[in-house]
Amino acid sequence: MEKVDWLVKENLTMLADFYEFTMANGYLENNMEGKIAYFDMFFRSIPDDGGFAIMAGVEQLLDYLNNLKFSEDDINYFKSTGIFGEKFINYLENFNFTCDVWAIPEGTPIFPNEPIVTVRGPVVQAQLIETMVLLTVNHQSLIATKANRIVRAADGRSVIEFGSRRAQGYGGAILGARAAYIGGCIGTANTIVDRDFNIPALGTMAHSWVQLFPSELEAFKAYARVYPDNCTLLVDTYDTLSQGVPNAIKTFNEEVLPRGFRPKGIRIDSGDIAYLSKEARKMLDEAGFSDVKIMASSSLDEFVIKDLLNQGAKIDMFGVGERLITAQSEPIFGGVYKLVAVEENGEIVPKIKISNNVNKITTPGFKQVYRFYDKRNNKAMADVITLYDEKIPEKGPYEIFHPLFTWKRKLLNNYYVRPLLVQIYDKGKCVYQSPNIHEIRKYCFDQLDTLWDEVKRFERPHEYFVDLSEALWNVKDELLKKHK
Amino acid sequence: MEKVDWLVKENLTMLADFYEFTMANGYLENNMEGKIAYFDMFFRSIPDDGGFAIMAGVEQLLDYLNNLKFSEDDINYFKSTGIFGEKFINYLENFNFTCDVWAIPEGTPIFPNEPIVTVRGPVVQAQLIETMVLLTVNHQSLIATKANRIVRAADGRSVIEFGSRRAQGYGGAILGARAAYIGGCIGTANTIVDRDFNIPALGTMAHSWVQLFPSELEAFKAYARVYPDNCTLLVDTYDTLSQGVPNAIKTFNEEVLPRGFRPKGIRIDSGDIAYLSKEARKMLDEAGFSDVKIMASSSLDEFVIKDLLNQGAKIDMFGVGERLITAQSEPIFGGVYKLVAVEENGEIVPKIKISNNVNKITTPGFKQVYRFYDKRNNKAMADVITLYDEKIPEKGPYEIFHPLFTWKRKLLNNYYVRPLLVQIYDKGKCVYQSPNIHEIRKYCFDQLDTLWDEVKRFERPHEYFVDLSEALWNVKDELLKKHK
Repeated sequence: MEKVDWLVKENLTMLADFYEFTMANGYLENNMEGKIAYFDMFFRSIPDDGGFAIMAGVEQLLDYLNNLKFSEDDINYFKSTGIFGEKFINYLENFNFTCDVWAIPEGTPIFPNEPIVTVRGPVVQAQLIETMVLLTVNHQSLIATKANRIVRAADGRSVIEFGSRRAQGYGGAILGARAAYIGGCIGTANTIVDRDFNIPALGTMAHSWVQLFPSELEAFKAYARVYPDNCTLLVDTYDTLSQGVPNAIKTFNEEVLPRGFRPKGIRIDSGDIAYLSKEARKMLDEAGFSDVKIMASSSLDEFVIKDLLNQGAKIDMFGVGERLITAQSEPIFGGVYKLVAVEENGEIVPKIKISNNVNKITTPGFKQVYRFYDKRNNKAMADVITLYDEKIPEKGPYEIFHPLFTWKRKLLNNYYVRPLLVQIYDKGKCVYQSPNIHEIRKYCFDQLDTLWDEVKRFERPHEYFVDLSEALWNVKDELLKKHK
Repeated sequence: MEKVDWLVKENLTMLADFYEFTMANGYLENNMEGKIAYFDMFFRSIPDDGGFAIMAGVEQLLDYLNNLKFSEDDINYFKSTGIFGEKFINYLENFNFTCDVWAIPEGTPIFPNEPIVTVRGPVVQAQLIETMVLLTVNHQSLIATKANRIVRAADGRSVIEFGSRRAQGYGGAILGARAAYIGGCIGTANTIVDRDFNIPALGTMAHSWVQLFPSELEAFKAYARVYPDNCTLLVDTYDTLSQGVPNAIKTFNEEVLPRGFRPKGIRIDSGDIAYLSKEARKMLDEAGFSDVKIMASSSLDEFVIKDLLNQGAKIDMFGVGERLITAQSEPIFGGVYKLVAVEENGEIVPKIKISNNVNKITTPGFKQVYRFYDKRNNKAMADVITLYDEKIPEKGPYEIFHPLFTWKRKLLNNYYVRPLLVQIYDKGKCVYQSPNIHEIRKYCFDQLDTLWDEVKRFERPHEYFVDLSEALWNVKDELLKKHK
């Protein structure tokens, strides 16, 4: 199935902050079109005080980069503002994207302060793509991370993404559902996502179905006749325990279902779900339907789900809507895009942004991120950010140390390493084939297996080590001293 | 300027919850294709405990409806699932939208429990558009409402939307900026929004501009030379008070600006903005630049802005990003879409959805909403929901009463009324021309002027009256009794 046009062919070049264009014009007016700059995207804190985030949005970043160009309309727009020079207009008319781009693959657990996207190229161009690099990766990483929290809370039970109607725009719905699938949801309610990404679309009936028939029982029977092999009934339109569940059982019993078909489930969408699910479970079991699943929906998130399960709620499957698709508890993934180096006479010159807040000081230079895995159990031990061309010795001990409290040190042994940043654009050409969504999801599962449970827990998770190599630390330290 | 394709021409028909299609198929299998149903969209509570919300998203709802159709790909998709009948496939192949749609115009203050969109038509069709009706109106109403809170907190100072990089998807950024403009922002950082909606795009420089020059002063001078007529300098790259502001003043003083140009402003993007803005104001004033504006940005929202102004911060303009574009404090607008009536032999038969929670019981029937204005001061006094064909007497007294606590009564006099729901689709044809965005914004301003300050305050706002006409109340009461 082809993806819809706006996903793969849409030109979003103009989705850029206006200052990116005024700066670009300024660089050209200052004869800086040849200036090569390096920008890093990184984030400073994990939403919901979690122990890790999940990288997502790289495929859409590629779609965007693949369509970078300025139309006649765009050029006319810039001319009409009266503030851009002729040089800039010519530059856009002959726009030729020549940047290199590196990104951490989708589905990888990521941590604060490490570069997750790096862009190298003429500063005019590298600056222009800032907004879309951030928007694309921030949005999907936010939702993939949130979805995985919910999936972990569900503790092995299935979670389906149900949030389109409350999503923040079409992209929020469609690409949010994509990210939720990467994070571990088994499907979505949104049909277009199935058509375009082959992510299973699931769903049964709304209250309106029940209301449109003369009685709930007749509504259920009508449904069972049409969907004998996928009969899940919504039981809370009138009263869950006195009417809904009994009517469902009647429908399952009365041999509306042709021989050989088993009913699938019931769905509870309101009320005290802990209590209702336990009572419904008993009623179903007593009626001989212990194989019928109970699905719950209704303003769920990881906190409500954990609480339901703590109360012994009998739920097999969760439909999670608005709080997933908007990441309601913390709806912002705060990725930033910062200048980290320039080239001068072919040499890479690191750049730093100072701040009174030590956590906001950037890490300068063109960099790589290595993840150290323990050979004995394949668990991730630490990430070390290095200068791009540094090599990690094949054999330890390799000493890591806290980048601020440098006396905190640790020797790593018995490790193997993996560089996380992968080149996706080489001098303006795409050099990366995105895996399909199922491969990304599988990779994400496998990578999450490499994290210690202590990193994955909800309350005060262990802070995973993200350190700087000694060489990189020295570069940063020297720049800090110079700026003092 | 033409809007981009995906905004006006994109076919989002398949952006629908899967259950809408399974139900549609079920209705056809049950020979209910002729069944006429009425659905209302309404919401139950105002985000952030506010006193009102602002309607937005109608233009995009029209764009969506204007493009409703099923492509060959869509049909093939449904066939491939193996669960849809031939009747349904034929129905989609010959799909002909014939619904009537009413909506409250964009920019109108709206209140809980009143219909803000009503759809009448064959249940198969009216059900299919549920997700997009909700998504479109929920998203933009959320952001317009949030933006207006921020604009009110800024108390006459300008607010610019700065959030694209943290928006939840492309639509979140673009249509969010549109909604923010309706809510009172004066512009956006997002260039595509200016090109496509003619909403002013604004912006000056990022920290990277300052970092790319040998010194901050040289960076400022280079900028001033390129933009003598729009020179706003970002002063917090190194140190705001010891370097940034002094360098800005030097640049303004050193006659980099050609004669006749005045500098525009400085921007502070980090640190203790209350303190920094006051000190910067003094320094600018003493240097003879009391006309130079101070702009602040950095994780602002209505709460932070109110606090800054309470502290006497000297800020003329706010750039508000992530917390506006995601409505961070409450990122969900909870509009729902409920069946309220069906037609039987040409008669409208009201339908109700019962709930143990009295606030969740729906108001049945095909309805209109009348806003009562006080003739003496044009202030809105109350909204009364009526049966669609009810007439409001031209002269009072007109008695309104609380729909739950019916002894709470009030006589309205000296009023004129305005029906709020406007027909936008008539038997499948668009009959509404959306005003342009500037007209919508102006209308919104004017409508907000009709609200009492008590409704607009942040803390415990006065609860605006939304009542049912006696005739409608009787319909609801009878249905409630019948279902007992």
